[in-house]
Amino acid sequence: MVETWPQKNYTTMEEKRPLILISNDDGYTSKGIHELIDFLLPIADLLVVAPDTPRSGSGCAINVHTPIHYELVSRSVGLDVYKCSGTPTDCIKIALNTLCGKRQPDLIVGGINHGDNSSVNVHYSGTMGVVIEGCLRGIPSVAFSLCNHAADADFSPMRPYVVQVTQLVLAKGLPHQVCLNVNFPNTPDYKGIRICRQAGGYWDKEAQPIPHRDDPNYYWLVGEFVDTEPDNPQSDHWALRNGYVAITPTTVDVTAYSFMEELKTWF
Amino acid sequence: MVETWPQKNYTTMEEKRPLILISNDDGYTSKGIHELIDFLLPIADLLVVAPDTPRSGSGCAINVHTPIHYELVSRSVGLDVYKCSGTPTDCIKIALNTLCGKRQPDLIVGGINHGDNSSVNVHYSGTMGVVIEGCLRGIPSVAFSLCNHAADADFSPMRPYVVQVTQLVLAKGLPHQVCLNVNFPNTPDYKGIRICRQAGGYWDKEAQPIPHRDDPNYYWLVGEFVDTEPDNPQSDHWALRNGYVAITPTTVDVTAYSFMEELKTWF
Repeated sequence: MVETWPQKNYTTMEEKRPLILISNDDGYTSKGIHELIDFLLPIADLLVVAPDTPRSGSGCAINVHTPIHYELVSRSVGLDVYKCSGTPTDCIKIALNTLCGKRQPDLIVGGINHGDNSSVNVHYSGTMGVVIEGCLRGIPSVAFSLCNHAADADFSPMRPYVVQVTQLVLAKGLPHQVCLNVNFPNTPDYKGIRICRQAGGYWDKEAQPIPHRDDPNYYWLVGEFVDTEPDNPQSDHWALRNGYVAITPTTVDVTAYSFMEELKTWF
Repeated sequence: MVETWPQKNYTTMEEKRPLILISNDDGYTSKGIHELIDFLLPIADLLVVAPDTPRSGSGCAINVHTPIHYELVSRSVGLDVYKCSGTPTDCIKIALNTLCGKRQPDLIVGGINHGDNSSVNVHYSGTMGVVIEGCLRGIPSVAFSLCNHAADADFSPMRPYVVQVTQLVLAKGLPHQVCLNVNFPNTPDYKGIRICRQAGGYWDKEAQPIPHRDDPNYYWLVGEFVDTEPDNPQSDHWALRNGYVAITPTTVDVTAYSFMEELKTWF
């Protein structure tokens, strides 16, 4: 019997403020998540449950063969921070099912990611994994990413945009099965916001050989992104290349509706 | 210098036959992938590059911090089998960039998965990770899954359907950015094929406490699936519950087009 089953324990939080559940894929010590906390603590109580190690490229992966463990790292007014052994998606699942208890979050935010999650990167991104999980649970969810992988990247120009988008989503909500993928170009001078669609493209030249002990079959996964529609101003990749903040509304219903009728004629 | 950089080495294959690249998330020793090989070897050359351990729940995860290694397990006429240390998505990326060389596959197949990949499971499935990666690379891609997790599940009733769907996709191709998610009910008597859309639903009660060393914060990720539209005959989950083979055409363009115009009015 577990006598200490974790219940709602936001002893330092005010229930009048909205509650935002935050996670990421760079880990709880990354600069991006600390900047995000700094941006959002003035407007909401924050519950942070983030991976204990970098988990870039986690997508929506979950741990089904390994137990998941979390641990309180710090608690201050309006802010609880936990580190978790799981993937970004695990962090959200475990938080919603244990720590959140009866006070479910009003919003889930992923990030701020160190690196670009536009175009096809949406599929590999653990930060988007956070947000897709929130969306699948019917909770408004937003991911923020900066097109700069550096550990000490400068996130400060993002502040007013992150606060604005967060407040808008808190006020208006999001449609059923829709979340937001918000990417920022690597420049301090944004030209504004563009509502975009996912750019067409793919990663190429992805295997870098790193032979070891006379065995040639070791590789780093690397790659060059190929934008297959570089001149399309509707795409998120175009917006970022041209200095705009790109907001790509993203659906968790991945049915290819446009192909259903033709496919029925096959059988 | 690597003098043995792997080049096209299908010494036992006939280039006149189509080439199918196969992977899964249950690992190269699972029954499901061996049954798939048995079903498809009569109609195509097969290159199998599958995880060396079970990787269920990998989604589209990739390894960006760890080298990836592969190793030839067996070679026979028309069939090369490699095990790979990476995720299902890694397997496809590394295979396309190294082993495939100039002979790129005509089709990529994921599976046969031990377990249901309908509804929201599409996001967590490593088998779907295989297929999404193929689709992102512009290669027709199909996932097959059986709603039975048992290691010794009976896949034999699936054979004619797997062969038919494979031959149809080889002959007709698939639209840009569309792949197929094919799920089979756990019954030997299928009522036929239904073209479906992804069922609405979510996983609930996902954290099972497994306290360890007086620490209550250890959990297994478990869950009960909640179908939020159980009476909708268009859904893949409905089709499976009612004994049909469910084919859900799936897009890798996850833009929520229907929300773009409204979102523009926010800013």
